[in-house]
Amino acid sequence: MTDIEIAQSVELRDIREVASRWGILEDDLMVYGKHKAKLPLNLINEEKMRQGRLVLVSAISPTPAGEGKTTVTIGLSEAMNQTGRNTIPVLREPSLGPVFGMKGGATGGGYAQVLPMEDINLHFTGDFAAIEKAHNLLAALIANNLHQVQNNLQIDPRTVHWKRVMDMNDRSLRRIITGLGGTSSGIPRETGFDITAASEIMAILCLADDLENLKARFGNIFVGFTFDGKPVYARDLKATGAMAALMKDAIKPNLVQTIEGNAAIIHGGPFANIAQGTNSVIATRMGLSLADYTITEAGFGFDLGAEKFFDIKCRDAGLKPQAVVLVATIRALKYHGGAPLHELKRPDVARLKAGIPNLEKHLENIRHFGVPAVVAINRFATDTDAEIEALQAHFEGSDVEVHVADVWAKGGAGAHSLADAVARLTEANDTAFKPLYDNSWSVEQKIETICRTVYGAKAIDYTLQARKDLRKIAELGLDKLPVCIAKTQKSLSDNPELLGRPKDFVVTIREIELAAGAGFLIPITGTIVRMPGLPARPAAESIDIDREGKITGLF
Amino acid sequence: MTDIEIAQSVELRDIREVASRWGILEDDLMVYGKHKAKLPLNLINEEKMRQGRLVLVSAISPTPAGEGKTTVTIGLSEAMNQTGRNTIPVLREPSLGPVFGMKGGATGGGYAQVLPMEDINLHFTGDFAAIEKAHNLLAALIANNLHQVQNNLQIDPRTVHWKRVMDMNDRSLRRIITGLGGTSSGIPRETGFDITAASEIMAILCLADDLENLKARFGNIFVGFTFDGKPVYARDLKATGAMAALMKDAIKPNLVQTIEGNAAIIHGGPFANIAQGTNSVIATRMGLSLADYTITEAGFGFDLGAEKFFDIKCRDAGLKPQAVVLVATIRALKYHGGAPLHELKRPDVARLKAGIPNLEKHLENIRHFGVPAVVAINRFATDTDAEIEALQAHFEGSDVEVHVADVWAKGGAGAHSLADAVARLTEANDTAFKPLYDNSWSVEQKIETICRTVYGAKAIDYTLQARKDLRKIAELGLDKLPVCIAKTQKSLSDNPELLGRPKDFVVTIREIELAAGAGFLIPITGTIVRMPGLPARPAAESIDIDREGKITGLF
Repeated sequence: MTDIEIAQSVELRDIREVASRWGILEDDLMVYGKHKAKLPLNLINEEKMRQGRLVLVSAISPTPAGEGKTTVTIGLSEAMNQTGRNTIPVLREPSLGPVFGMKGGATGGGYAQVLPMEDINLHFTGDFAAIEKAHNLLAALIANNLHQVQNNLQIDPRTVHWKRVMDMNDRSLRRIITGLGGTSSGIPRETGFDITAASEIMAILCLADDLENLKARFGNIFVGFTFDGKPVYARDLKATGAMAALMKDAIKPNLVQTIEGNAAIIHGGPFANIAQGTNSVIATRMGLSLADYTITEAGFGFDLGAEKFFDIKCRDAGLKPQAVVLVATIRALKYHGGAPLHELKRPDVARLKAGIPNLEKHLENIRHFGVPAVVAINRFATDTDAEIEALQAHFEGSDVEVHVADVWAKGGAGAHSLADAVARLTEANDTAFKPLYDNSWSVEQKIETICRTVYGAKAIDYTLQARKDLRKIAELGLDKLPVCIAKTQKSLSDNPELLGRPKDFVVTIREIELAAGAGFLIPITGTIVRMPGLPARPAAESIDIDREGKITGLF
Repeated sequence: MTDIEIAQSVELRDIREVASRWGILEDDLMVYGKHKAKLPLNLINEEKMRQGRLVLVSAISPTPAGEGKTTVTIGLSEAMNQTGRNTIPVLREPSLGPVFGMKGGATGGGYAQVLPMEDINLHFTGDFAAIEKAHNLLAALIANNLHQVQNNLQIDPRTVHWKRVMDMNDRSLRRIITGLGGTSSGIPRETGFDITAASEIMAILCLADDLENLKARFGNIFVGFTFDGKPVYARDLKATGAMAALMKDAIKPNLVQTIEGNAAIIHGGPFANIAQGTNSVIATRMGLSLADYTITEAGFGFDLGAEKFFDIKCRDAGLKPQAVVLVATIRALKYHGGAPLHELKRPDVARLKAGIPNLEKHLENIRHFGVPAVVAINRFATDTDAEIEALQAHFEGSDVEVHVADVWAKGGAGAHSLADAVARLTEANDTAFKPLYDNSWSVEQKIETICRTVYGAKAIDYTLQARKDLRKIAELGLDKLPVCIAKTQKSLSDNPELLGRPKDFVVTIREIELAAGAGFLIPITGTIVRMPGLPARPAAESIDIDREGKITGLF
């Protein structure tokens, strides 16, 4: 059975019943149909939060299909609940880009899914649409201000880097010229679209404490300079109230259920390659307020999502992660050991072993943050016992625990030993967590520390544009912000071709975008773009819906 | 009190309770929070529909602020219910363009509003977002097909007129160049954005019977020609299944409540100047299936919305409208009589009388469709008794009934005599309704009939582009489709400067767009554009939200 067939074979519980098991009253819920709901922020409880245990699931460098980080997060949560530990998984929302593109949905797989998967993967409760509108409203107000020559703010159009966003893989929107058509249609200007997950509005949603804080951050969004060199922020355009009004419901985290009928929270954006990428602080706090164990995820690999989770999100929100689960697959290890994509199903212990250095590098990286870790092998049907034994044998006698998570096939029942290991790691309810760098360091120092320590680079190269951006950042007094590096997920380096554990590579910082509202800088490395494209055969081609509204072809 | 203050002073009923009074079970509803719900299509009942009476509310040519067509529709419905007639108003959804631009919300005013007005005016239940995504998915698939040079459909990019859409007043997106940035970012191409209400996807939603019919219409969307001249449709791009999946919930009409706690249905798009503009066939059928009287609206003026309602929607769906309420305001009549905008509050019987020919022309137009009419004066606080009496005196002795609808101030209690008049007009439950033209006529003949008969033009001028478009339409065999003319709402003519009842004017057909999926042609007249812009002081500037989520400044 495919993921969607398994998902559709399950009898869903009423979401009010799912909520009631956590003491949430029907009256507190904002229900979206029978199986989705939004949770009010007043359920966040400082006292309970301090007692909750926070576990991060991340992964090794993934293959293009992904290594099942979400699947393991869900399956592990089921296993925790099966073994008597009150647990809620807290996930990031899927983007329509991959749904219609290459990778498909992002709601787990097999018997470790969140439901209703069709709804969650498509519009869900409208959070992405709200983010898109708030972002594009600011863009429209900027363009209008440039156009209204009689009473504008005298913004120099050449200094405006605020683009528009759309939740779609549409490469032809990356670089565009707007405002053609004469005096009635604005100022001709070079600009572009990013995918919505990469919007600063998404980052602000993910880092905000509440509506007030969200609005304050919106106000701090840097728009550009006036002709006489003064910085212009979103608040100068009187944009923040309307933008925040658009986020009235989007700020509330979403409650759904797992295949086994347990609660799951989903809120905030994906794509730690081109964005902050982890779910919202509000959602994580909600999990900690409700459950004893909150299991969240950050990817693609640990180098991207987890570094940002620790250095940006946990630091900013004062979160104390107590354990990391590092997901690996036999497939991905073989891939990093040199196996071509079409041979990943073929047993190959030699290539598997050759791929282990990638896993080891991610384990090293976890240690830099002071958080204990366990490795979870997300089992695929094509994995052989010999391969799994070879991987386990490699770590025998070390302090690295390796557990098979057979959650795609078995749900929570496939991850009891992993659940026990996670519970042990968090037993002390204490953490030695520390971020990798100090925000007070120079921007270059922060970038270099991540690139050398986490990625394994030998040097960092700044383009002329990046150097210019560094000067602008210093002038604006924004150099004490943390950095949120945009980098390919395919490699530990900024070159998607370098698999395994690359060494002696140079990271190129192409440019540095500002996210003054979100509160970070975005050094963009290599050739990564913040608006993906569709493949030659888009997944959209196989999606369909019948007359009763049943969707097929989502995976 | 402002509209939003009045709206927020009302204690709302649980939407399940509102629905239960119409025999709708909680289990049938897809609830969005406590005060919004979607209705399942299986509540549509052919037998009941035939007994339901359908009333259209339209208006004279409006001032920029609008004449309160929605306000009268709601107030009249309240009055019908107060006087023992089971009535549901069926409205079109608001667009964010005017909400952030000049006109504000579109949920009625004063004590004749639908609630919760903040939600309905902002994202509502996500229908616009779904339409936008379905539209832009097709655009992304087209752009991707052009980009994938190895296996594309050989579409000639110069023949593709499918733009993108965004629900925002953003003039700088009207004409753009996409696909810049070299070989990795698509094909450079001139294109643009329309506002979402003008999307063919919106028109299809408004005309579709059900999901199957929606999908079939999506498949018929004309995309362009191959290099060897063969037409390409959305079905050739395998786009229809995914597009329809995005519309799974959007196809269901929305249930909300009026200030007096009665049911109201809202579904489908606005803007009959640049689009089809009336609410969905599904919503109208839902109203007819539930209530004895269904009161719907079509504007801006009768020349735009009502003509399309009759000639496109009613004909396509076999609807039988039984009466028209033509809304006029003292303000608008003075405006058409020559009063400048800033003097509309000043009593001026002479200019009022000078404006009456505009009203008379709309009354003449109604007669062409064979449906009886009544005039409703939407009373403003600034109207004087002398002005109202002058208007009533003008029609004394004629067969035109004129009723004051004091619904902004009094709700349903302000429209009892109007309600009685409407009930009388529909007493026979029969209709002599007939469309203005036959679809079998030539395109030019259809355009000319509307322009001469309804607008009052003396001649029609086709640009070279429009003539080229006519040839293309004939080649494609689409010349038997009805026409959906895009024209300014400010004048009966295509020139926004010509107020009152203009005569001896020439309508210019600038170009003719195809909406083969929706099933109509779009002759674009004068200088009308399908993507509005923001004014110098956008309404967005005064919108705000406080820490409890209470929104202010929406009007």
